[in-house]
Amino acid sequence: MTTLAFDADDPTLAATAWSRLAEPGDETAGALVAHLGAAGALAWLVDQQGSVLLEPAAPAQRALAAGVARWSPRLDGLDPRRELAVLERTGGTLLLPDDHRWPRGLDDLGTAAPFALWVRGDADLAAACHRSVALVGARASTSYGEHVTAQLAAGLVDRGFTVVSGGAYGIDAVAHRGALVGGGSTVAVMAGGVDRFYPQGNHELLRRVTENGAVVAEVPPGSTPFKQRFLARNRVIAAMARATVVVEAAWRSGALSTARRAADLLRPVGAVPGPVTSMASGGCHQLLRDGVATCVTDAAEVAELAGEVGRDAAPRPVGLRSAADGLGDAERAVLDALPARAAADVAVLCRVAGRSLPEVLGALGVLESRGLVRPDGGRWRRVAAGRG
Amino acid sequence: MTTLAFDADDPTLAATAWSRLAEPGDETAGALVAHLGAAGALAWLVDQQGSVLLEPAAPAQRALAAGVARWSPRLDGLDPRRELAVLERTGGTLLLPDDHRWPRGLDDLGTAAPFALWVRGDADLAAACHRSVALVGARASTSYGEHVTAQLAAGLVDRGFTVVSGGAYGIDAVAHRGALVGGGSTVAVMAGGVDRFYPQGNHELLRRVTENGAVVAEVPPGSTPFKQRFLARNRVIAAMARATVVVEAAWRSGALSTARRAADLLRPVGAVPGPVTSMASGGCHQLLRDGVATCVTDAAEVAELAGEVGRDAAPRPVGLRSAADGLGDAERAVLDALPARAAADVAVLCRVAGRSLPEVLGALGVLESRGLVRPDGGRWRRVAAGRG
Repeated sequence: MTTLAFDADDPTLAATAWSRLAEPGDETAGALVAHLGAAGALAWLVDQQGSVLLEPAAPAQRALAAGVARWSPRLDGLDPRRELAVLERTGGTLLLPDDHRWPRGLDDLGTAAPFALWVRGDADLAAACHRSVALVGARASTSYGEHVTAQLAAGLVDRGFTVVSGGAYGIDAVAHRGALVGGGSTVAVMAGGVDRFYPQGNHELLRRVTENGAVVAEVPPGSTPFKQRFLARNRVIAAMARATVVVEAAWRSGALSTARRAADLLRPVGAVPGPVTSMASGGCHQLLRDGVATCVTDAAEVAELAGEVGRDAAPRPVGLRSAADGLGDAERAVLDALPARAAADVAVLCRVAGRSLPEVLGALGVLESRGLVRPDGGRWRRVAAGRG
Repeated sequence: MTTLAFDADDPTLAATAWSRLAEPGDETAGALVAHLGAAGALAWLVDQQGSVLLEPAAPAQRALAAGVARWSPRLDGLDPRRELAVLERTGGTLLLPDDHRWPRGLDDLGTAAPFALWVRGDADLAAACHRSVALVGARASTSYGEHVTAQLAAGLVDRGFTVVSGGAYGIDAVAHRGALVGGGSTVAVMAGGVDRFYPQGNHELLRRVTENGAVVAEVPPGSTPFKQRFLARNRVIAAMARATVVVEAAWRSGALSTARRAADLLRPVGAVPGPVTSMASGGCHQLLRDGVATCVTDAAEVAELAGEVGRDAAPRPVGLRSAADGLGDAERAVLDALPARAAADVAVLCRVAGRSLPEVLGALGVLESRGLVRPDGGRWRRVAAGRG
């Protein structure tokens, strides 16, 4: 029977203890803490160890018994003060859900929400995520995907958005870097503890993220970034950001799980298309085919997806204007009917254009006023473009 | 007052006359012919010329009066026998809507349906279009778009589809050529008369199309391919094919009008994504954003769009398989918890994986049976991949 080495009534220590006892996204632990409070749930767990819960009848009881069996091995030697001391040495901050700086989007996760966030950098995640987009994608990115990611990140910080991502190689790294280069704010959500930046090759990048945003984890310092924790981490990215955009992802990329989590939370999801010949865009195309994601091609379209109605509407592309723009059907038909270089009389124009005499005369008037045709001795001819 | 030089009671000559008198898609003419028959409508028109329809009150009467004014200039010298003779010299066939070879999809156009089709090549368009896809796109295609079009066309003819397109340079030409190279059937719908292949540079290609499919127009031989006729022609492509796919199109490409016509007809519409950095894919992305088109990336997906439920379902992409596929959460957690090279005992695995003792023991059993772990003197270690 374990006894705890620390004051289990302290709300901070108790919440911190749960972020170590339960794996991210453990909904049984979440429900227990929601019901009893972190300190109450911890006291209950310590208490339960002695009792034997053999084959309980109700599903909820069975889930709790399984939880006790899952969490108890970690009670041994548990001391959140050590982990808080490590965080303090890094200059970091612990955020609890009742903090006004807690990103409120996480509340949508319900009982799967984190118990605490371990933050290095600017701890006001509520402010950072108020206007934010998660840009995620494959580690195995192409130069196309990296180019587009950098453009999107720069365009988004220009529009006042924070760029959220996972700190990984490939698309994630370019997203953070693009936000930093654009002078904006960016948040990296780690799968392991914030005491050791992972992957090692992004150490300097993540250090710079702490200076212009934050590096965040829900697991305490010292936690290893296991595969399951990457998947669990993706739900935090999806819930923190206003919208999630996948730039490049192969069919089995983890970025797709972030997109599907965001869709489950009814957050807007975007996917950037790419060449169908590129495996690295296959996952994006699948999201588009499945109707999970909206097709987005530039920062304005992403801002429209993630931003406020009215403020962030993307302009419609207009393409090139031509002199024939805005002409009615009759005018276009008469213009088409005029030979390229010769003049034509009105009766011929009626026949060739398939229009009545009044229509042709009216159309010629409009075309003349636009400088597209001119009368020529009782007949009509085109005015050559550019000599207008 | 014009009198006709030919037998206006002959149904073929009368329908042919209307394909000359009215511009493609003239719904007033279509309604008149539907109501009175082609011969009756022609007799009525000849009759009407004498009467003066000044400012008629009802909208339908006004539309008819405007129609009479529009069609009458072309009565002068009208003789469909000349155009039929030209068609005969090319070895072509005239199809009327009551012909069993008429592509029934055109009926969905209602009063905007063609009065006749002038066909060079295999006149059984009903058979050709029974299983068909329109592949359309920009004249200003990129090598990416051409590559994808050729792949799609080849894959579609492999699956027994006819490829319908517009015979233009760029994507259209590659679509026809891809179908021919694949030994399949293809139909080119022209905006001008079938006596002169347009554009001139595709002459040899279109000649080959007549040998493995058909070149088709709704306007008689001698008709010039005016701009308005290209737009009208697009509705024929959209209505003839079971589905329409845009491979590459800029924002103002005519191919987008074909897609929108197909959507209006409730036909499936697909768009092939491309690099967002390519203007030539901008129109495709707009169709995806507007929800007009489904994202399609290969021939299997196009076949699913255009084909029959069950017969043509596209396989889901699977990606690469890994040894950890099909593992449950507990097994994955235990596998993650095992150090890369050292052995670990069960108590440590419980703590690190955050799982109960029965879960860890069960998971080790599954992992051992898959050859992923092995016991090692009371502890457990990973089996290195590849030495399994």
